[in-house]
Amino acid sequence: MIILLSLYTQYIVSYEVGDIIQLPEPQKDGGMTLKEALNNRKSSRDFDDTKKIDNYILSQALWSCYGVNRPNGYRTTPSAQGWHPLIIYAFLEDGVYKYNPLDNTLTVVLLGDHRAKTGTQAYAAKAAVNFIVVGDLNKKTSYNNTQKKMAIYFDTGHCTMGFSLFAAANNMKGVDRAMVDIDALFELLGLSSKDYLFSLAYSLGY
Amino acid sequence: MIILLSLYTQYIVSYEVGDIIQLPEPQKDGGMTLKEALNNRKSSRDFDDTKKIDNYILSQALWSCYGVNRPNGYRTTPSAQGWHPLIIYAFLEDGVYKYNPLDNTLTVVLLGDHRAKTGTQAYAAKAAVNFIVVGDLNKKTSYNNTQKKMAIYFDTGHCTMGFSLFAAANNMKGVDRAMVDIDALFELLGLSSKDYLFSLAYSLGY
Repeated sequence: MIILLSLYTQYIVSYEVGDIIQLPEPQKDGGMTLKEALNNRKSSRDFDDTKKIDNYILSQALWSCYGVNRPNGYRTTPSAQGWHPLIIYAFLEDGVYKYNPLDNTLTVVLLGDHRAKTGTQAYAAKAAVNFIVVGDLNKKTSYNNTQKKMAIYFDTGHCTMGFSLFAAANNMKGVDRAMVDIDALFELLGLSSKDYLFSLAYSLGY
Repeated sequence: MIILLSLYTQYIVSYEVGDIIQLPEPQKDGGMTLKEALNNRKSSRDFDDTKKIDNYILSQALWSCYGVNRPNGYRTTPSAQGWHPLIIYAFLEDGVYKYNPLDNTLTVVLLGDHRAKTGTQAYAAKAAVNFIVVGDLNKKTSYNNTQKKMAIYFDTGHCTMGFSLFAAANNMKGVDRAMVDIDALFELLGLSSKDYLFSLAYSLGY
């Protein structure tokens, strides 16, 4: 089932695992200057649990991190040899979603609040959204295993810098996080460490 | 010797290895919006050899990558545990410089044009500046060796995303590069692979 959001829909209220949600088109201009966003950039962890984000925020944050900015499917953040190995999961209060950059949609992966499982730090459960970035080790490339890992880490740095600047430009809070129980998280997501490499988490909220 | 740049000085013409050059203060606002810069972001390699950059461009590019944006010395791009292990070299037509983010200066490392040694691709020699990013493995941290490498790669991704957005926001060209003769480059810079980890190069120009 594809659920199309109307202009004023802020929250998706009924869907099932496997549903595809069309995100609002990200804005390509307006808002804070790059210089001001860089000047505001900082890591913040003291999240206010009561403020949620809507799909406009989610769409813009994901586009800033790994969204398409050209007709050939290339992204806002670079990937050596156009490999684009990253998969980004968004853990919100109501469920876990996988980002599909090419058509700007989310796939519903899990229902319910699993934010606490995205980090060993207590504040993760209070962030409006926790992004989990993993690399697809089976995606076709000429890289060997060491090069794959490096490429995934560089790409993740680019990608989470997109989140950081999004947070800065919108007066939101955010932080990169590495302290995650990867085995438990991968079991929850149904991922095998043979096929996927955990790289970083990013908490975003107010 | 410290050379202070006047407002209209574009090129430093006389200095020696070891000299410290004060960079112009980076601008903290004005210019392109973050969204537009993300939308313009792309990797470009066809550099025009004839256009140079001045110290205003150099200062702003370096600040976008690893500059100080708070009184405590913290940066425009994040570093886990505030480690900040990166050292950034700028290879220009007239010399090689090391960036000192805390006082926004450059140290003159080498005189002369060594840009061709920053990459195996011919276009590196034509970029107005090639940045070389290395990690200082001896900088104090609680990380083990594997964690150090990961942290350096993530930080480098953040940092070169800063270069990428700087290029996009200024209608300049730029690209991340990994293909480098690291042994030759480290010998030129007087660096040991025991103490420093090469992470990425970034070519920036017109």
